[in-house]
Amino acid sequence: MADKIFRVNMSDLSTRVEDVPEAWMGLGGRGLTSTIVAAEVEPTCHPLGKRNKLVFAPGLLSGTPAANSGRLSCGAKSPLTGTIKEANSGGSSAQMLARLGVKALIIEGKPADASKWYSLQVGENGVTIKEESEVVGLGNFAVIEKLNQRINDKVGVISIGPAGEMQMLAANISVKDPDNHVRSCGRGGLGAVMGSKRIKFIAVEPTDKKVEITEPEAFKAANRAFAKALVDNPISKALAQYGTNVLVNIINESGGLPTRNFTAGQFEGHEAISGETMHDTIVARGGKPKHNCHPGCVIQCSQIYADVKGAYKTSGFEYETIWALGADCAIDNLDHVAEADSIMDDLGLDSIEIPVAFGVAMEAGVLPFGDGVGVCRILREEVAKGTPLGRIIGNGAGSVGRAYGVTRVPVVKNQAIPAYDPRAIKGIGITYATSTQGADHTMGYTIATNILGVGGKVDPLSKEGQVELSRNLQIATAAIDSTGMCLFIAFAALDDATCLPSLIDMINARFGAKLTANDVTNLGMTILKTEHAFNLAAGFTNKDDRLPEFFRDEPIAPHNVVWDITDEAIDSFWNF
Amino acid sequence: MADKIFRVNMSDLSTRVEDVPEAWMGLGGRGLTSTIVAAEVEPTCHPLGKRNKLVFAPGLLSGTPAANSGRLSCGAKSPLTGTIKEANSGGSSAQMLARLGVKALIIEGKPADASKWYSLQVGENGVTIKEESEVVGLGNFAVIEKLNQRINDKVGVISIGPAGEMQMLAANISVKDPDNHVRSCGRGGLGAVMGSKRIKFIAVEPTDKKVEITEPEAFKAANRAFAKALVDNPISKALAQYGTNVLVNIINESGGLPTRNFTAGQFEGHEAISGETMHDTIVARGGKPKHNCHPGCVIQCSQIYADVKGAYKTSGFEYETIWALGADCAIDNLDHVAEADSIMDDLGLDSIEIPVAFGVAMEAGVLPFGDGVGVCRILREEVAKGTPLGRIIGNGAGSVGRAYGVTRVPVVKNQAIPAYDPRAIKGIGITYATSTQGADHTMGYTIATNILGVGGKVDPLSKEGQVELSRNLQIATAAIDSTGMCLFIAFAALDDATCLPSLIDMINARFGAKLTANDVTNLGMTILKTEHAFNLAAGFTNKDDRLPEFFRDEPIAPHNVVWDITDEAIDSFWNF
Repeated sequence: MADKIFRVNMSDLSTRVEDVPEAWMGLGGRGLTSTIVAAEVEPTCHPLGKRNKLVFAPGLLSGTPAANSGRLSCGAKSPLTGTIKEANSGGSSAQMLARLGVKALIIEGKPADASKWYSLQVGENGVTIKEESEVVGLGNFAVIEKLNQRINDKVGVISIGPAGEMQMLAANISVKDPDNHVRSCGRGGLGAVMGSKRIKFIAVEPTDKKVEITEPEAFKAANRAFAKALVDNPISKALAQYGTNVLVNIINESGGLPTRNFTAGQFEGHEAISGETMHDTIVARGGKPKHNCHPGCVIQCSQIYADVKGAYKTSGFEYETIWALGADCAIDNLDHVAEADSIMDDLGLDSIEIPVAFGVAMEAGVLPFGDGVGVCRILREEVAKGTPLGRIIGNGAGSVGRAYGVTRVPVVKNQAIPAYDPRAIKGIGITYATSTQGADHTMGYTIATNILGVGGKVDPLSKEGQVELSRNLQIATAAIDSTGMCLFIAFAALDDATCLPSLIDMINARFGAKLTANDVTNLGMTILKTEHAFNLAAGFTNKDDRLPEFFRDEPIAPHNVVWDITDEAIDSFWNF
Repeated sequence: MADKIFRVNMSDLSTRVEDVPEAWMGLGGRGLTSTIVAAEVEPTCHPLGKRNKLVFAPGLLSGTPAANSGRLSCGAKSPLTGTIKEANSGGSSAQMLARLGVKALIIEGKPADASKWYSLQVGENGVTIKEESEVVGLGNFAVIEKLNQRINDKVGVISIGPAGEMQMLAANISVKDPDNHVRSCGRGGLGAVMGSKRIKFIAVEPTDKKVEITEPEAFKAANRAFAKALVDNPISKALAQYGTNVLVNIINESGGLPTRNFTAGQFEGHEAISGETMHDTIVARGGKPKHNCHPGCVIQCSQIYADVKGAYKTSGFEYETIWALGADCAIDNLDHVAEADSIMDDLGLDSIEIPVAFGVAMEAGVLPFGDGVGVCRILREEVAKGTPLGRIIGNGAGSVGRAYGVTRVPVVKNQAIPAYDPRAIKGIGITYATSTQGADHTMGYTIATNILGVGGKVDPLSKEGQVELSRNLQIATAAIDSTGMCLFIAFAALDDATCLPSLIDMINARFGAKLTANDVTNLGMTILKTEHAFNLAAGFTNKDDRLPEFFRDEPIAPHNVVWDITDEAIDSFWNF
């Protein structure tokens, strides 16, 4: 049976199953969510109003046995940035939705009665809308526990925590993983959009159906080659051993580890929060240093971090979160960081945006730098309860800056800048400035080339070559984000000649298509241009493609460099 | 002695007196502040950073005996809207600065040491910067009292209250009036800009000097004719009797009195807050129904509102403030409104922005509609102290909307929409949308023609003629705002053939010039285009020239009309 568009209208509580329009047939993941948002959402609409739409789409390979193909894309107009937005996540739901034949789930409208909450249940014949009260107000972990009991423990769960219910602009959307923990569509406040539509969770029914593969043998062969390229890659191996947090020492060494609200590039407490320390702590406490966030992942960069008693504390404990609470808030205590990470997962908050917001709040004097206990207290007593301070922080770094009149606010298009200082690693600054979605390292991860030496070498401190580097990576990323693949396949794709061809072979085998590498590049370019056109129609200009002025004014130690890429160079990004 | 530019650099604490550049010679007031801001401020700069400049300029006729010529213009890039901004105020300082030979006072830079506060003292030879501690943290009334003692009671005072010190985005700049009360450069958060430069107050030294008038006799004759036109005008008379608050009953009758956060166009409690009730209350309590805000005003729309014991409570008790707390927050108690007005004057807060912010907060459930006591409590205990809730409200209506996820937020370019509903009075909607400075009725007061029948008649409910009406008024207003004249001369200027020629005659007599009515119109057009160009360079587009979408979606009683002017019609505003 051909895949379908599942459409839900929350204004009149109706649902429909529609044929996939010809133009959307070859799209999946981000390519599909961005195309649908650009086609159906008024660019100038209020992101929390009835005219915005929330779109979920599995990738082109999701649901197949392809290694690492379990990412779920979620798109909308972002209430944080005002731009188009796609965030993707691991967890089990992408593969389940794909097997149910869901090409995309489009949620539109908004209930007139704002006192009620709803859930969606997605099965192979369509979507059922039900009124919900039992789990309203609960954190993500409790929601999963209740639904495992109410439905069954194989059910897929896509939910918002209290932050999304309160429409906080840093609210994410959580996706249940195979171990009943959560992965997140983290950035851009998509949880607030789900909250505005009064949907607490989406349950995805387990199914025995399989995704149809046109040429099964060719697919199998390609998948074998692809998986081998992934597991053989040295960065894959480092990720498996230390998680993404392997980066703390590497980026600290580069002088690009933003510290104390971006006032220095190295953190004296880096050893205490490093991937090496984390690994040893996990092993000593009987946690799990290696763990997959979705079935079929062969890299396994996740881990189970245990507390001093050996009990589960958090998982998917990422470098960006650890950097933000660790270096940027100067909390040199991994247990405090893990505690905060766990609370943010439960409340459903972007664990980049919120810690960067705390860094700004620390500069404003709301709490002292280094106060990990204070961060956890504010998360529990203020953010979780929606107090005024909780809302200021829950709305992100820009919100804190505006509330307290702070001018050193690391955001682009109102989204917090993540874990790499653009003064010391200039390629990533181009990505922050030009990304169609506000500051986001995953949109064009120049760290691979600037620092890790993958896919060539571009000196991080030089002005030369950064625009081209960011452009090539942003185009490739847009394409990869459409396949359902985890972005970490990019390291192998950049360095192993067998990787990308086998990925394309899998897509061709799945659909009986004849795509070439050129087609994939064209897909990436088309996605970027579609997203950019949406933003221009929403009122964005090249004046929004700029870093905050403090990066120009304040040299950062140890290299004592400023952001010195010209506006003209930045604007040349779009010359393709 | 020729007028000079007085320049203050707060980065190095230096001051200079400069000759006036040729191009600025014929400018004053808003024409001069906007020209200077456009020439010297980087449009994309952070409004609270060192690159913004705060510019004060008396009008072309300020300091002369011309009736009603005492307005002081203040300009900068607005931290509330991100646009260029000019706000003007009565009080005594414009005339004093003009007599000291100050063409404009330009304050640039920002102290590196954010722990210190400063004052400026302006005399005929220049500006002195002093460190200040005694009055830091005090409200405007106490600042004036202390400075009257410290310097002398004739000193001119331009100050910020605690709101400006905390850089709240609704902070205004207060100007001492002849009775030691305050008038305000109200809109756009200019008080936060002054706070960012760490200036608590500017003292203007009294002087015996007079403004030079090239043709004194011609000036006198023109001023006589001009003053007669003002006092003979029927609207001037109504303003003298009831103040601007004469409008409550008129606008309620028109169905355009926004009520309960813009959900209705009439307020059942309108009688309790009307100009007629206010007048009778003032008379009964021994207040002063008629009062001038600056020396030489012949209209006298201000008043002294007394409390039940006959003691001074507030002055300059304007329609917009009374509407916003009265109808928009549903507080049908003039004493509660007066109390809140007095607190806002003391804290230095825009009494349009803050009450509209309370209306949004009431919709969010922070306090109930009608709770005047609650408003005063929150102003005193939260806003004055800079608590998190105080900062959310102190940053204006848009801030409250974002904090609480409210979508019915009446702002344009993040500035609160004032006292006239654009669905029921469509001309003013064009002004809100297209104004270079965010929603602001004073930028092109179509109420004159739409409702009061001054300068012709344009049906407020029709789509026809509104763009032309707003355009003509915005051009005329930009010119009037450059003369130092109060905007209320416009009623006479539109209806009395002797008024505008005598105003031009006065300018010509003052400078020995030969301006025609055409030149004045051209001046107005040039100012608007200069301001618009700044905004475009700052990243604004026509997508920002739109009203919030709820005006399109929600018909307003009693006319049950929506905002139905097309985007194309709005954009045609700039065809001149």
